[in-house]
Amino acid sequence: MGHTSESRFRVRYAETDKMGVVYYANYFVWMEVGRTDYCKTVGFSYRDMERDDANMAVADASCRYIAPARYDDEILIRTSVEKLNRRLITFAYTISNAATEQVLAEGRTVHITVRKDGKTSSIPEPYFTLLSKLQ
Amino acid sequence: MGHTSESRFRVRYAETDKMGVVYYANYFVWMEVGRTDYCKTVGFSYRDMERDDANMAVADASCRYIAPARYDDEILIRTSVEKLNRRLITFAYTISNAATEQVLAEGRTVHITVRKDGKTSSIPEPYFTLLSKLQ
Amino acid sequence: MGHTSESRFRVRYAETDKMGVVYYANYFVWMEVGRTDYCKTVGFSYRDMERDDANMAVADASCRYIAPARYDDEILIRTSVEKLNRRLITFAYTISNAATEQVLAEGRTVHITVRKDGKTSSIPEPYFTLLSKLQ
Amino acid sequence: MGHTSESRFRVRYAETDKMGVVYYANYFVWMEVGRTDYCKTVGFSYRDMERDDANMAVADASCRYIAPARYDDEILIRTSVEKLNRRLITFAYTISNAATEQVLAEGRTVHITVRKDGKTSSIPEPYFTLLSKLQ
Repeated sequence: MGHTSESRFRVRYAETDKMGVVYYANYFVWMEVGRTDYCKTVGFSYRDMERDDANMAVADASCRYIAPARYDDEILIRTSVEKLNRRLITFAYTISNAATEQVLAEGRTVHITVRKDGKTSSIPEPYFTLLSKLQ
Repeated sequence: MGHTSESRFRVRYAETDKMGVVYYANYFVWMEVGRTDYCKTVGFSYRDMERDDANMAVADASCRYIAPARYDDEILIRTSVEKLNRRLITFAYTISNAATEQVLAEGRTVHITVRKDGKTSSIPEPYFTLLSKLQ
Repeated sequence: MGHTSESRFRVRYAETDKMGVVYYANYFVWMEVGRTDYCKTVGFSYRDMERDDANMAVADASCRYIAPARYDDEILIRTSVEKLNRRLITFAYTISNAATEQVLAEGRTVHITVRKDGKTSSIPEPYFTLLSKLQ
Repeated sequence: MGHTSESRFRVRYAETDKMGVVYYANYFVWMEVGRTDYCKTVGFSYRDMERDDANMAVADASCRYIAPARYDDEILIRTSVEKLNRRLITFAYTISNAATEQVLAEGRTVHITVRKDGKTSSIPEPYFTLLSKLQ
């Protein structure tokens, strides 16, 4: 099934809304935390990839919400690469309550590589190989 | 094709990221602005619906990103109800640059109705009828 | 007393927190909306000022909270320039509920001008003159 | 000088803006992370304090920005209680880059205790004693 990275953090008060639970858009911020950590576990910093003029622009994002997250809950995100080729990378995320192991949400983001001038490009080396080797 | 509401506002600096464009999670906040305005155009305030113990909890959300939005761009969101029954409501959104009419993103959110005690319920009256009549 | 610009918008659900009111950090986002509108009313877009390599970096920000704002409330921000010289600009904000005219918060931000390379600079023309003339 | 708690986390991409650095309002979110951790280090969860109908509403907030924070920087927040009585609590924060120890910002928030009905109250026990004992 390939490599999976794990990210852990606590829900911020800022992330809740008047319903008393985490506002739905914030799960996409959490997926970004998952992606950042995934890149580190395969051996690079996404910061460096951007310095090499390769931005993973989001082409598609989705989330299925299963149970609410609440302030101060410890969140566990498991991130993996579902599909990868030179042009596209798809990350999949399982977001859980770390204490109860209950799955709270499942998400997916599809990325294309874009240069600073806005042109699409392919994932440059060494990033492509690093992302590939643990799949 | 049913009723469509329109929302207009300008991109905030806070909504941009270091890539120089709007951060992807913020499109889901914009969809919420679209939903709020949709409810008003069919004749009610979502605030009142919540006071009547009916929260439209998000069960599913997705967005396809087509072109970037930038600071101070005027955004136009067209919101419509794609599916509706007593248990589920699906909103569809087309997010455009108001000046150029270029479509920037297309999104969809699916909602279930939840009471304050966390139990699911059906969309209460008069909200169901108001949401139905313009479809 | 100088020039005052007015900005109006409705509170987003995303801006509330589990206390049921607007989260305190969001008032600083609203001040940014006020600044953007202020620049327009004196005759320029802050976007253009940034293109001319002059960023108004925030050196100091403060807010006094008087009464809560709630989801869907219409907010009115009155923005003015309190102090201005070539090196520093201080904006002052009064944030009110537009319907009741109740003052919700008062804020202040102090800015220095920074170039893309991180060096401080003075406010370039024509921006300095435009900011000065209505004071 | 009293008790100081430490919080560490990495800057999220979502927290940056088009200037390439962290957007100024997000420092106030970080102060909230600092407060939450402070409460834990003196022996209680702020979540429980809220369950006991005591919300620390923000009455005043300020931040002085010294140097920018960037994506993926490790941030260190040192939080302490600067003033405390039954009616008011003032937290002070020093926000640093954890790797370089450079101070990035200094902040302060003043809180009053508010019940769910909106009325002010005094800080209830055992929270007041726990907040006092390490000062």
